[in-house]
Amino acid sequence: MPKQPIRVELSSTKKPKPQSDQLEFGKIFTDHMFVMDYSIDKGWYDPRIIPYQAIPMDPASMVYHYGQSVFEGLKAYVSEDQKILLFRPEKNMERLNRSNDRLCIPQIDTETVLEGLNELIRIDKDWVPDAEGTSLYIRPFIISTEPYLGVAPSSTYKLIIILSPVGSYYKEGIHPVKIAVENEFVRAVKGGTGNAKTAGNYASSLKAQQVAETKGFSQVLWLDGIEKKYIEEVGSMNIFFKINGEIVTPELNGSILEGITRNSVLELLKHWEIPVTERKISIDELIEAHQSGELEEIFGTGTAAVISPVGELIYHDQPYVIQNGQTGEVSKKLYEAITGIQKGTQPDIFGWTVEVDSVVKQA
Amino acid sequence: MPKQPIRVELSSTKKPKPQSDQLEFGKIFTDHMFVMDYSIDKGWYDPRIIPYQAIPMDPASMVYHYGQSVFEGLKAYVSEDQKILLFRPEKNMERLNRSNDRLCIPQIDTETVLEGLNELIRIDKDWVPDAEGTSLYIRPFIISTEPYLGVAPSSTYKLIIILSPVGSYYKEGIHPVKIAVENEFVRAVKGGTGNAKTAGNYASSLKAQQVAETKGFSQVLWLDGIEKKYIEEVGSMNIFFKINGEIVTPELNGSILEGITRNSVLELLKHWEIPVTERKISIDELIEAHQSGELEEIFGTGTAAVISPVGELIYHDQPYVIQNGQTGEVSKKLYEAITGIQKGTQPDIFGWTVEVDSVVKQA
Ligand SMILES: Cc1ncc(COP(=O)(O)O)c(C=O)c1O
Ligand SMILES: Cc1ncc(COP(=O)(O)O)c(C=O)c1O
Repeated sequence: MPKQPIRVELSSTKKPKPQSDQLEFGKIFTDHMFVMDYSIDKGWYDPRIIPYQAIPMDPASMVYHYGQSVFEGLKAYVSEDQKILLFRPEKNMERLNRSNDRLCIPQIDTETVLEGLNELIRIDKDWVPDAEGTSLYIRPFIISTEPYLGVAPSSTYKLIIILSPVGSYYKEGIHPVKIAVENEFVRAVKGGTGNAKTAGNYASSLKAQQVAETKGFSQVLWLDGIEKKYIEEVGSMNIFFKINGEIVTPELNGSILEGITRNSVLELLKHWEIPVTERKISIDELIEAHQSGELEEIFGTGTAAVISPVGELIYHDQPYVIQNGQTGEVSKKLYEAITGIQKGTQPDIFGWTVEVDSVVKQA
Repeated sequence: MPKQPIRVELSSTKKPKPQSDQLEFGKIFTDHMFVMDYSIDKGWYDPRIIPYQAIPMDPASMVYHYGQSVFEGLKAYVSEDQKILLFRPEKNMERLNRSNDRLCIPQIDTETVLEGLNELIRIDKDWVPDAEGTSLYIRPFIISTEPYLGVAPSSTYKLIIILSPVGSYYKEGIHPVKIAVENEFVRAVKGGTGNAKTAGNYASSLKAQQVAETKGFSQVLWLDGIEKKYIEEVGSMNIFFKINGEIVTPELNGSILEGITRNSVLELLKHWEIPVTERKISIDELIEAHQSGELEEIFGTGTAAVISPVGELIYHDQPYVIQNGQTGEVSKKLYEAITGIQKGTQPDIFGWTVEVDSVVKQA
């Protein structure tokens, strides 16, 4: 697929921008969006930047009925020298295409989409917040649009990128959360769509999440759907454990999302020569490690929080306090390293950041 | 929830109606649709019938990202005396509310929605086809509409009903299909959303279906996601087997959709005193029954086809011909009984049909 030229239609009005300290997650969107269409005849066509707007959709559009859709999530940060940096965006594009494959959605030309994203951020650059901990959340997604009620892959799609300035995940500094091991509901199973970033995985997680929240837990820790025994991942994070000096994370088994933060953590740990293994971990092993005092840290990894230390694990209504409910050393070190690279305050030794073309924010 | 009055806004233009013999499934929609909104403050509000139209949707609408949506499918038929009959519509409303519960969508007042449906069909009555085998397919669905990227239940929803005149499922009379036992992909697992009618279940089924079609099979037969051993259901049908004179169907186990046709078949078989059991059935048991000559019939049940005889089962690339590839006695008898009740040519001994108010189609 050749890279395609991007058409630009600027908005005649500008929305008011929110205060940096009043930002929430994913509620406010910038002035423009990137859109590209697909039809069987034309392939992906008409990549364009247009004013952010509601899109008229036929009520028979397949996405409403059969959920054929995929999405991504990544962030842009303002560096100290006022450049805008993206974190490993090509990884998100690769994952989007893997999700497309699972959902029978046509592959995208990742270069066209990355160029569209670059251009979109250039145009909406004044929306990228620069206060401590803030960032621009980027949501590329693809929806099936054919108005047809047959259960089959759609013949038409829309790829859209929207941007949302978001506040600090940790308003009062990084702090550990409580997560509950889920025993009833299942998020995904081998052979299903767990390793794709598709809408249905999140729909199926809502109920368990709702139950957990009413009990005061921030997220659920999913077990495998087959034996309800092996640890999978958290709501929208992968999970790591420090057991007796070694870091362990569940291996990619077909039902876990391959997180880009997870990958970055693995690379950093290897670089630091901290022992790390990807393997099966049972909940029983964890509880035993806790009892023998060897469960030293737990942390989640994901684009939203980067690193989210876990201070308490709840299993069968029994609380297991981790690291006295404090943030562990490795969690802290990883958080600082990754956010440092993301914001350009630390050397980008892995070449992870990509600068948005010729943008220097006005201070 | 009290029943609410329904506002009506008629279309000023009428679309051309298709020829009865050129009808396909789910491609053409009538002149009007029913819509109702939900907000936390107001609950479900403003039930209305409006011209069929595209709906402007914010690109951040939650349904696009997290698939929080549910749907139903039922049919209306024209009887010999030109009345319009619905088949067990209250069952679909009950199932919609069960799906709502699983997907954290607020419960609907089924009376308001049934009245809306009744009124909608009255208005679009000339769209209900009456040629042999044709019907009006009814698609109620609910989508989450809040423009918010947090993974949480939406605070706003739309319920919509659209209508599509559909052709005969069996253009050349009822005929058996080939279905392939799926070994790699999994549709649903206990603890997941398999027993809810929600978009993600269908999204996850597309890939297996696509593979099956390229091999010349019409549908896949799903095995359980845990042991890949027990029969679950077909694409959009439940499944029944006649083994040595007895009818067997997989028991409702949390991952199978509770089909309304399935329920009707169970009631009819009991009424006819044909032995029928709901229980676990392994694929091994089926293959053995085939080898010993005891596997006498297989048929799927669902709103679209009513009864779909299976003439060939493919398992590990091995074909197993059923009933010489012909439609079995029980399949035929059930098809005639149910379609007879649906079209009013047989006495409605179970009180399954509901007449659309004061409509007599002009012949
Ligand atoms: C289910 C799930 N697991 C893990 C992750 C973490 O992935 P990443 O590090 O790429 O954000 C996410 C979030 O994107 C997710 O939705
Ligand atoms: C997954 C699935 N199973 C079974 C059925 C059959 O259900 P019903 O008989 O209510 O149409 C359907 C179709 O609605 C379905 O989508």
